[in-house]
Amino acid sequence: MIPAKVKIVEVGPRDGLQNEKEFVPTETKIELVNRLARAGIVNVEATSFVSPKWVPQMSDAAAVMAGIERRAGTIYSVLTPNIRGFEGALEAKADEIVIFGAASEAFSQKNINCSIAESVARFEPVAKAAKDAGMRLRGSISCALGCPYQGEVSVASVVDVVERMKALGCDEIDIADTIGVGTPKRTREVLAAASKVFPRERLSGHFHDTYGQAIGNIYAALLEGIEIFHASVAGLGGCPYAKGATGNVATEDVVYLMNGLGIETGIDLDQLVDIGDFISRAINKPSSSRAGRALFTKKRDGVAACA
Amino acid sequence: MIPAKVKIVEVGPRDGLQNEKEFVPTETKIELVNRLARAGIVNVEATSFVSPKWVPQMSDAAAVMAGIERRAGTIYSVLTPNIRGFEGALEAKADEIVIFGAASEAFSQKNINCSIAESVARFEPVAKAAKDAGMRLRGSISCALGCPYQGEVSVASVVDVVERMKALGCDEIDIADTIGVGTPKRTREVLAAASKVFPRERLSGHFHDTYGQAIGNIYAALLEGIEIFHASVAGLGGCPYAKGATGNVATEDVVYLMNGLGIETGIDLDQLVDIGDFISRAINKPSSSRAGRALFTKKRDGVAACA
Repeated sequence: MIPAKVKIVEVGPRDGLQNEKEFVPTETKIELVNRLARAGIVNVEATSFVSPKWVPQMSDAAAVMAGIERRAGTIYSVLTPNIRGFEGALEAKADEIVIFGAASEAFSQKNINCSIAESVARFEPVAKAAKDAGMRLRGSISCALGCPYQGEVSVASVVDVVERMKALGCDEIDIADTIGVGTPKRTREVLAAASKVFPRERLSGHFHDTYGQAIGNIYAALLEGIEIFHASVAGLGGCPYAKGATGNVATEDVVYLMNGLGIETGIDLDQLVDIGDFISRAINKPSSSRAGRALFTKKRDGVAACA
Repeated sequence: MIPAKVKIVEVGPRDGLQNEKEFVPTETKIELVNRLARAGIVNVEATSFVSPKWVPQMSDAAAVMAGIERRAGTIYSVLTPNIRGFEGALEAKADEIVIFGAASEAFSQKNINCSIAESVARFEPVAKAAKDAGMRLRGSISCALGCPYQGEVSVASVVDVVERMKALGCDEIDIADTIGVGTPKRTREVLAAASKVFPRERLSGHFHDTYGQAIGNIYAALLEGIEIFHASVAGLGGCPYAKGATGNVATEDVVYLMNGLGIETGIDLDQLVDIGDFISRAINKPSSSRAGRALFTKKRDGVAACA
């Protein structure tokens, strides 16, 4: 049942860095993307073509895309909130664009002031343009395991958004636990239900570690046959609404898990640990990756990580 | 397959605090044990009757045991490395004593300068005395999923120590991932093998979160039918060999997992979060519990932990 091989989508450069208050120099972002791809990451979410008024950290999207190496076989994805963002992505020759919607009505109303159905429908022109341009299209469903405003999110709501995104022509759909509240039981229920309306091998699991559950949820998702997982090196991202809380699951922890399960990722964990150290120093924050910290200490001090 | 109810053994007061360099006042230890028991923890590893030369932090073992409330139905366990320790435990009216051994020959030689077989055999007089006194006896097997010196530890070595501890009359046996290197596949293999020689319902999982895998391993252990888990409030303990690395899995994260799975623990998570805050302040260290930090922030700020 458990897959022999998984694809890890590295979201650190976009989802991870976007909430950093201090502007991260463009050359640092470029180096981050390049080093991740060289370490074996085959899909990097590189930046976001969003209004610089909304997300100043991503105001250098075009420069990042122009500056990075384009490795053969690596997919460089960008977030595009609207047709203007899409045009930037097209000009930058992004391989994949990412559109998004929430599975929670309360979240959708509160954050974009419209219903879930309207929020997905708004992406129709972007989706069509992407397809016409021969670009890959990914749909990301936030709050799939719970919502900060309404709490519980029904499995049916998630399935409904999956169907809407499928209708838009999404090649891949992310089931995202945006606030990290999920646990393995609900994770399996949602993924099993989503798999009934969209091909399982093109569903991805995007887990946050806010409540320490991400690795448990990823193992649960593997048991449901999921083959694509999002992660952020050094656990970049934190949680914008709770200081000190954890955000995206760390790529190092995910790769460590996959190695232990004998699942192929194609990623060099040793290089990844160094990249986690590099970007943590660059933004002057400790790494949130437990495996990253343990392996880095072990390498530096030449001792067992713990005994 | 997954149990409807689990027992959480809180090891923070002993395993968690023993490596703290600054002496934690006896009254703080007593308050910690009392608050944990009041929050619904039915088994607290309260202290260790060990030579104060080895572990100065535990030099107040008798005072802690004399000072705590003894709640009906709560088991207060203590670690006893030898017959002298046992005598202290007996005098202190501990409910359960804990003996220990490694599943790794290299670890055993390096740490106690004898073979695994000899290390377990040395506990014979302690085990007999405990049985004669009508006390519960628990055996803890360290390095069951990996060793800092020899690396791999075979499933057969773990099973061998389980059989030796069973022969000593252990009521409960811990499979401990002392250095946190395990992942779900090996966790399941080891627990399935151990269950063949010792009753599954009296085997416990003791996981460290050094590589971020503990919650995944606990979910894996639940899938093997394991019903007893160790955890340390606020993730107390850290890792003595790697500064900044994580040690024991946090009780808050484990209870959050169980709540999400609909598994009964009898523990009040809200109280637990406050206890985690109390002890983290007392030792002046940030909590290592992700769920603890997120829930504490949510409670304090009255906002969603993350969105």
